Amino acid sequence: MNTRSPPTPALRMEAIREAHARIRDKIHRTPVMTSEVLDQLAGSRLYFKCENLQKVGAFKARGATNAVFLLTDEEAARGVVTHSSGNHAAALARAAALRGIAAYIVMPSNSPLAKQAAVRRYGGEILLCEPTLAARETTARQVMERTGAAFIHPYDDLRVMAGQGTTAIEFLDEVPQLDVILCPVGGGGQLSGVAVAAKHINADMRVIGVEPAGADDAARSLKAGEILPMVNPRTIADGLKTSLGEKPFAEIIRLVDDIVTVGEESIVEAMRRILEVMKLLVEPSGAVPYAAILERKVSGADIGIILSGGNLDLDRLPWQK
Amino acid sequence: MNTRSPPTPALRMEAIREAHARIRDKIHRTPVMTSEVLDQLAGSRLYFKCENLQKVGAFKARGATNAVFLLTDEEAARGVVTHSSGNHAAALARAAALRGIAAYIVMPSNSPLAKQAAVRRYGGEILLCEPTLAARETTARQVMERTGAAFIHPYDDLRVMAGQGTTAIEFLDEVPQLDVILCPVGGGGQLSGVAVAAKHINADMRVIGVEPAGADDAARSLKAGEILPMVNPRTIADGLKTSLGEKPFAEIIRLVDDIVTVGEESIVEAMRRILEVMKLLVEPSGAVPYAAILERKVSGADIGIILSGGNLDLDRLPWQK
Repeated sequence: MNTRSPPTPALRMEAIREAHARIRDKIHRTPVMTSEVLDQLAGSRLYFKCENLQKVGAFKARGATNAVFLLTDEEAARGVVTHSSGNHAAALARAAALRGIAAYIVMPSNSPLAKQAAVRRYGGEILLCEPTLAARETTARQVMERTGAAFIHPYDDLRVMAGQGTTAIEFLDEVPQLDVILCPVGGGGQLSGVAVAAKHINADMRVIGVEPAGADDAARSLKAGEILPMVNPRTIADGLKTSLGEKPFAEIIRLVDDIVTVGEESIVEAMRRILEVMKLLVEPSGAVPYAAILERKVSGADIGIILSGGNLDLDRLPWQK
Repeated sequence: MNTRSPPTPALRMEAIREAHARIRDKIHRTPVMTSEVLDQLAGSRLYFKCENLQKVGAFKARGATNAVFLLTDEEAARGVVTHSSGNHAAALARAAALRGIAAYIVMPSNSPLAKQAAVRRYGGEILLCEPTLAARETTARQVMERTGAAFIHPYDDLRVMAGQGTTAIEFLDEVPQLDVILCPVGGGGQLSGVAVAAKHINADMRVIGVEPAGADDAARSLKAGEILPMVNPRTIADGLKTSLGEKPFAEIIRLVDDIVTVGEESIVEAMRRILEVMKLLVEPSGAVPYAAILERKVSGADIGIILSGGNLDLDRLPWQK
């Protein structure tokens, strides 16, 4: 018997549609690409939704933009705050700049300089803290108390989840015949939004989450029926190390057909093959769904694959000696 | 006084339009991409025509396909032959496979195995020869005598030039306000085709060729008014080492506004920046036009840049230690 049950599902399709109308002139409608070579290798028709070509180089632009533009003028005037060392940080800074408001980004002091530079490029104000979750939360709370800024969580937030779900609206508008969509899962913001939208548009479609075997909390949580936190994740896919959020999990447990895991070698091979054949740079987290194809863990005639992001350090490509 | 004058210009716009109608369902209409970040750095609006996302990973698919589908059934039945160690080899093999005919590809014995594999993947028959131009030409001639196959030159061929020019039709259809197009120049097949099409569509548009300073035969030839062959080219942009062809030069000298040269460091920086910011893999030759932007050798409000190809060895990225 589960002692901690997930919250009631709360993400409405209407919120995702409204999010799309709200953000569509502020983000890219990213292309869907295909490859005869990769289709032959897979024995399926593969469709790649290129969120690595999204603004700030990741799908995170969708959710952050939706959240920022949902604020009232009064709320917005006090700015926004988050803690993130990844793509959500840059996405929130950019969205705030579009609205002309302040963005306070709490980042651990060991964040890569490139990630800090991305936040600054969009005009975000960085507050460095100790690299622990407690320090991040404390620092963010202090900023909120000092400024009154609105906190925008990277994934455990319905406004953010609705924004991420807009990916599925565009994907199915362009390729309605998909019979399965593969989506990476870390905190679950994207997977939950995509699941709500995809199942609403076509109830027969399968939605499958993919995560590294070394950060398999979503697979274990789905099986257990409750959130099992990720302890000591070990994977190159740094965007997927985080534990599932409660709000995303409420949708995932209701709608997602399966969560499969992939090995580290497959993730690197997936990154490399997408770069070599499709000429597209994806970060490790973004290559995880295609790794499930390489491992033959998913089948289907028409398979949709979300390339979720493309930000990584070119001096440290994982196949370099 | 020039002793060797170029042949009379012979590439007609009509041939390029016909080529486009002939090949358009056999190639990709490649996307045009933009980047706010790169625009800011350049101080211009940049439009990238992504021929690295073309079939076989390079614009060469256009010319080879046009040439193969222009053959009569009788000619085609005897197959096609070329000598090439690069993208034209794979492009011709693919085009021949589409038409269901044989492709004989003469390659120097020191060709990278990856390039040979690409030709075989499309069903081309490889004939290895000594790595000299004389051996390549002799071997190709022997194949023609034995099989009656039609020779399709990589660039010094009006059918091929017409096919390459189709890039400009698509580019200007999508971005009519371009005031300059930058195109790499090696043998001149693409630059000549693009110049004829672009100037026909908009006579005020500038067309500028870009080549490595270490393979600057086109710049010197344009200045001299005659083809000055390239001796001992030294550049990472292996696709641009070849000397100008006579048929391309006849168009280039008539229509091209300028040819500028770029340094090796700029080419590597251009490759890297396109990959990092735009998430697109381009080979060194394909990054050469953007290198001219980095070196501030070209100005304009709306600048078109052709990313000509994306095939390279990921184990030997030029910024790797």
